[in-house]
Amino acid sequence: MDDFSRLCIHTITTKPLRLDIAIGAYQQIGAGGITVWRDALIPLGLQESARLLTGSGLEVVSLCRGGFFPSTSAGERQKALDENRRVIDEAVALGAPLIVLVCGAAPGQSLQESRGQIEDAIAALIPYCEQANVRLGIEPLHPMYADTRSAINTLAQANDIIQRLGSPYVGATIDVYHVWWDDRLETEIARCGKMNAIFSFHVCDWRCPTRDLLNDRGLMGCGCVPIRQIRQWVEQAGFHGMIEVEIFSDELWKGDQMELLQQIQRAYRECV
Amino acid sequence: MDDFSRLCIHTITTKPLRLDIAIGAYQQIGAGGITVWRDALIPLGLQESARLLTGSGLEVVSLCRGGFFPSTSAGERQKALDENRRVIDEAVALGAPLIVLVCGAAPGQSLQESRGQIEDAIAALIPYCEQANVRLGIEPLHPMYADTRSAINTLAQANDIIQRLGSPYVGATIDVYHVWWDDRLETEIARCGKMNAIFSFHVCDWRCPTRDLLNDRGLMGCGCVPIRQIRQWVEQAGFHGMIEVEIFSDELWKGDQMELLQQIQRAYRECV
Repeated sequence: MDDFSRLCIHTITTKPLRLDIAIGAYQQIGAGGITVWRDALIPLGLQESARLLTGSGLEVVSLCRGGFFPSTSAGERQKALDENRRVIDEAVALGAPLIVLVCGAAPGQSLQESRGQIEDAIAALIPYCEQANVRLGIEPLHPMYADTRSAINTLAQANDIIQRLGSPYVGATIDVYHVWWDDRLETEIARCGKMNAIFSFHVCDWRCPTRDLLNDRGLMGCGCVPIRQIRQWVEQAGFHGMIEVEIFSDELWKGDQMELLQQIQRAYRECV
Repeated sequence: MDDFSRLCIHTITTKPLRLDIAIGAYQQIGAGGITVWRDALIPLGLQESARLLTGSGLEVVSLCRGGFFPSTSAGERQKALDENRRVIDEAVALGAPLIVLVCGAAPGQSLQESRGQIEDAIAALIPYCEQANVRLGIEPLHPMYADTRSAINTLAQANDIIQRLGSPYVGATIDVYHVWWDDRLETEIARCGKMNAIFSFHVCDWRCPTRDLLNDRGLMGCGCVPIRQIRQWVEQAGFHGMIEVEIFSDELWKGDQMELLQQIQRAYRECV
């Protein structure tokens, strides 16, 4: 029997499935964990979603996503902090120990300015995280998202913030899709591990060619990302948590989602 | 009167125009230079294209493009070298002192392996470049093109190769679209300048949102690239050559190309 106890599925990967159906499907393939996207909480509501998750036997690995901190307006930055406190409350309700941060970027200001605002915002949230016992994973996003989604585009930048803040509640989420191209990746993964700051690990693949900037990720093995190599680096750095499959794909969302989960099992076994 | 003597237009920017029409249009707006894409040579042929360029009064800044060196097959790598020698011959015929290199990547092997093959290939071409008196500009491409277009994705990587090869015939082409997100950009531009290796400078803008991975570049000023800042760094590093407008845009190619050139004049004046 294959062991899928370290396999975690993101609800966004099977976006067409309502949360209760998704939970059943993930149980059926023997997945060990689930990462919940906030939009997946809407149909059933937070309380009912939490009840289903608690009784599911699936480990709730993280809640996606907080962040979007920078803005040229101080009022908007304050609103973002309030919103992130609500995300922390939701994580508590769901039993999720970790929130993934897509940190944001504001086109009207420099990336450097945005990075400073991101660091300030995370620092401001730490007391609330300590109280809630919920951690924050800074996810470096691919440089093609530097315009509006994240000014944190390399693991080096995430590590710099993590090191300066020095809190056990702030670490990194490493997604192979975003970082595979970086020639400093091995070094920075090791550095992140030394800080005990590899909080989570996401996999999928980069299709060649990629047809859409957002929703054309591929199943592991179908593209050019050296997934197994990166997994090895992450594990050598001391990470032995869940391996999370996070795929945004208009193409895959169109198909049968149970079949997709079986393809994910195969791809996980053969290419991760 | 505005001075457009440092303004150079890439033929791809006005792709619908045949080379003779493009030359006339660039003269009309007072542009100082032209960079010729190889596809623009096809309708009139190399000799007639060369004759028109020579008589145009426009400075031929560079020929786009050579490169595409890596392959998992040694035979293909040899073919790529032969093809690049043909590109050098064409540059001589056109009076172009520089060839821009889109270095290539081979999905079947690691980026590190591809980078090694790129360096070997460029080294192999140096004697031919010396003989022809044609220089090669390594253009770092945005990491979203690391799958198949280029394994050189940062100016740091280009500078490393330039430094190791140590030839006055090998330098860098810096395109703001590809490098704007990089937090080491200022440092690496200075480093490149110290090697006298900033061979050319391309501008356009990154649209927010960007709708296509390849053909959705924007006019300078319409996006989030700090063009003026990067130009300042490049000039502080000693570069005072042409400022080349290279825009791939399905949207802009659909419109009147003479109007587009007038928009480029305005954008060049106000945002570069």
